[in-house]
Amino acid sequence: MLPSPSRTVPEFLPTLVRGNGVSLERQLAQAYREAILEGRLPGGSRLPSSRDLAATMGIHRNTVVSALEGLVAEGCLQSVRGSGTFVSADVQSSAPLTRALQTARWLRAVPEPTALPRRTELLEFRVCQPSTRDFPMDAWRRAWREATRTAPSDDYGPVAGEAAFREALAGYLRRARGLHCTAQEVLVTSGSLQAVQLIAQATLTPGTRVAFEDPGYPLARQVLEGCGADIVPIPVDEDGLRVDLLPVGVDAPHLVYLTPSHQFPLGGRLSLGRRQALLDWAHESDALILEDDYDSEFRFDVPPLPALASLDRAGRVAYLGTFSKVLSPALRVGYVVATPALLERLTRLKTLSDYCTSSLTQMALEQFIYSGALERHIARMRRVYAHKREALLEALQPLRDVSRVRGLEAGLNLFLECDPGLDLRRVEQDCAAQGVGITLVQRYAHRECLEHGLVLGYGGLEVEQMGRAAKVLVRTVQSTKSR
Amino acid sequence: MLPSPSRTVPEFLPTLVRGNGVSLERQLAQAYREAILEGRLPGGSRLPSSRDLAATMGIHRNTVVSALEGLVAEGCLQSVRGSGTFVSADVQSSAPLTRALQTARWLRAVPEPTALPRRTELLEFRVCQPSTRDFPMDAWRRAWREATRTAPSDDYGPVAGEAAFREALAGYLRRARGLHCTAQEVLVTSGSLQAVQLIAQATLTPGTRVAFEDPGYPLARQVLEGCGADIVPIPVDEDGLRVDLLPVGVDAPHLVYLTPSHQFPLGGRLSLGRRQALLDWAHESDALILEDDYDSEFRFDVPPLPALASLDRAGRVAYLGTFSKVLSPALRVGYVVATPALLERLTRLKTLSDYCTSSLTQMALEQFIYSGALERHIARMRRVYAHKREALLEALQPLRDVSRVRGLEAGLNLFLECDPGLDLRRVEQDCAAQGVGITLVQRYAHRECLEHGLVLGYGGLEVEQMGRAAKVLVRTVQSTKSR
Repeated sequence: MLPSPSRTVPEFLPTLVRGNGVSLERQLAQAYREAILEGRLPGGSRLPSSRDLAATMGIHRNTVVSALEGLVAEGCLQSVRGSGTFVSADVQSSAPLTRALQTARWLRAVPEPTALPRRTELLEFRVCQPSTRDFPMDAWRRAWREATRTAPSDDYGPVAGEAAFREALAGYLRRARGLHCTAQEVLVTSGSLQAVQLIAQATLTPGTRVAFEDPGYPLARQVLEGCGADIVPIPVDEDGLRVDLLPVGVDAPHLVYLTPSHQFPLGGRLSLGRRQALLDWAHESDALILEDDYDSEFRFDVPPLPALASLDRAGRVAYLGTFSKVLSPALRVGYVVATPALLERLTRLKTLSDYCTSSLTQMALEQFIYSGALERHIARMRRVYAHKREALLEALQPLRDVSRVRGLEAGLNLFLECDPGLDLRRVEQDCAAQGVGITLVQRYAHRECLEHGLVLGYGGLEVEQMGRAAKVLVRTVQSTKSR
Repeated sequence: MLPSPSRTVPEFLPTLVRGNGVSLERQLAQAYREAILEGRLPGGSRLPSSRDLAATMGIHRNTVVSALEGLVAEGCLQSVRGSGTFVSADVQSSAPLTRALQTARWLRAVPEPTALPRRTELLEFRVCQPSTRDFPMDAWRRAWREATRTAPSDDYGPVAGEAAFREALAGYLRRARGLHCTAQEVLVTSGSLQAVQLIAQATLTPGTRVAFEDPGYPLARQVLEGCGADIVPIPVDEDGLRVDLLPVGVDAPHLVYLTPSHQFPLGGRLSLGRRQALLDWAHESDALILEDDYDSEFRFDVPPLPALASLDRAGRVAYLGTFSKVLSPALRVGYVVATPALLERLTRLKTLSDYCTSSLTQMALEQFIYSGALERHIARMRRVYAHKREALLEALQPLRDVSRVRGLEAGLNLFLECDPGLDLRRVEQDCAAQGVGITLVQRYAHRECLEHGLVLGYGGLEVEQMGRAAKVLVRTVQSTKSR
């Protein structure tokens, strides 16, 4: 549409600010662009000459000319030789201004993940939380200095992980976990939840049956459900998953997810007999076992049990580990150990998920492992957590007539099984009112929960904080009991 | 099963190594465990006394006792009071030893992503590759020193990103892109591919129609397809996506993915008129626009065009950016700017994808932005890439009778449109034989490709390398032409 030369542009004088880091030319162009797009300068109207504009605004004429040229190039203005510069007629948005769109046919409802929101105002027995107070800062900074010695890569890293880091991980797993694997059997992931996601994508189609501990880790369950899993909840007792209750034959699930080293959240360890039975079941049922070994590094007073992946002789176990507990959840680094056929599929899927995990972080962790700092830190933290655990056990002593402590062999949590008569919802509310956060085991149940009790994380609280929090808990339970 | 005391264990003397960092006790336990699980020590057979074992191996008796106790606790051995220690009968794996499992009902075939594998042996005109040779190392190391000054967090980071980093990103987008948004409208992702993944999960159900540039970015297309998209390929010309060819009415796709600043791979810029038309189309069709602004920071000789997200007044644009081109692909940090309703869903989905992006990396990048180092680096690299671009244009001059250069306004690639008669597959092969890697535009086409030419990345090669590579290309084209 040709501009009509009869209309002149309304009075328009943008506010220009000198010395704010944005050139006057750019400010001028932005102001005009916004005014044009918002319809304040009508299409077809003519601008004053650049000389007049410059004089009015007290700026150099070249600045005006450059700004207007840019707007012409963008299409916001049109320049007609011999007639002047006009506001383009076809650039105004016809859509009404609203940034609050809440409904659209493409906007799918997405359920709220049942991850625990952090209650920062509370003294919280936060589940699975490590402490980073005794962090080996010198070794940590040294590792990062090393990783940032040279410029970052001009390309994506290898999808499966940096070769040297995978090598370091294989060595660590051999030393710390007795798990013999090669670097080629290790895939680096952006946290172990991504590992669950990739394995789900590699193995599930909508409606595939997946056996899952009940109670169990809700985020992993939701990831599996998000990939189409039909969850088959399997009860758990003090020896971990009730392997004898796994469906067999045509009803056998394709996949079973479990936490054999320290069942989350009840804390049992899967007995060796059950481990063998589970492997036999997987072999007979042509099923894959997802062994989530999220916190076995912190083991107390008991010898390690061989990982399912160590016992597996048929390539039916995918082993998941993470740095979230031994170092920090904010790092987002985990790993999978699996057979080549599965690992190849996981690697393809990871390409489409985030291409690779931060190369820099991998390089720093590699340094941290090779220097021995990781294993020294773990050994130290084992003592720290053991001490915290003792302090909590001591503090919970007054409740021994109405409760029983379970799941002490490993990890950063314990399970306080309570008398069925104790009103735990009231205890939870009353504790919260006094600034203490506790978690009911019900939160982790898929069906109606057979257990009655509290999952208490003791990793993140300092001993003194834990003493205060436990005092509140004990007092609250005692007063609730006596009501 | 009770052990039969009549059988004794076969001669078994594990090799123990002193001073390799693994305690003798652990070595002993591992050796016995393996021998038991592999059936070399038959179930029910009796071990020699700990005194005899210690004497035979020349180690302290307590070491033997501890190791055997651990194996008893694991269930590998059984201790019968007064009779001795026996190999448990029920721990041997019944599954045959095979780690090469290739077929299983749960192992889904996953297609190979069409990402370009890196050909390290070649001088490659690698597409979209930045250079990190002129990296501002001092500012970079300073940013990381700052990020590692304190211990990493004892908790996951905020799912949507660290507040200060989102703030820094909003400021950067305002200054560098004229995009006005608040920190609350920014979601930090682990690379922009994760952003595509999350948006696909938040908006698609199986069979949802998605308009996609043809030719276009294959990994984004595969991510969308992986989430159920029915791809509707839309042709592209020198002004970008042919918006006029988008289906309307009941056939209108829910989603359209495009690269308006510098169409990948042809290099056109979506004209302002088409931008308005696209926004109007999206509004009428109730569709979402995915604006992937992957490399608009490197713009040459032309003024910026307003981002679709800047023009959008109806909350119909999700804007994607990345640090892969301006810094390094190995960092894995990108971001989405979107309306609160969409952002809330993306955040929930990110919780289940990788929970959050590395907090440390976010803190380092925040420092890097606030110090001004990012924008200084971009300004410097714009000159470096402009120089490389000029050098490549100059080197390609001899081909001007059989080709035409397009897509020069921005980014790290150009499109060399070639005469239809030129056998580009032969050119590709002959170049490869001489150690030079080039990419045919066909690689990025969804349907039969209407374009005939090469996509040449000039970001990653040094000027001298590019001169050599271009010489090979020119000579090869000329000799292919004359055949």
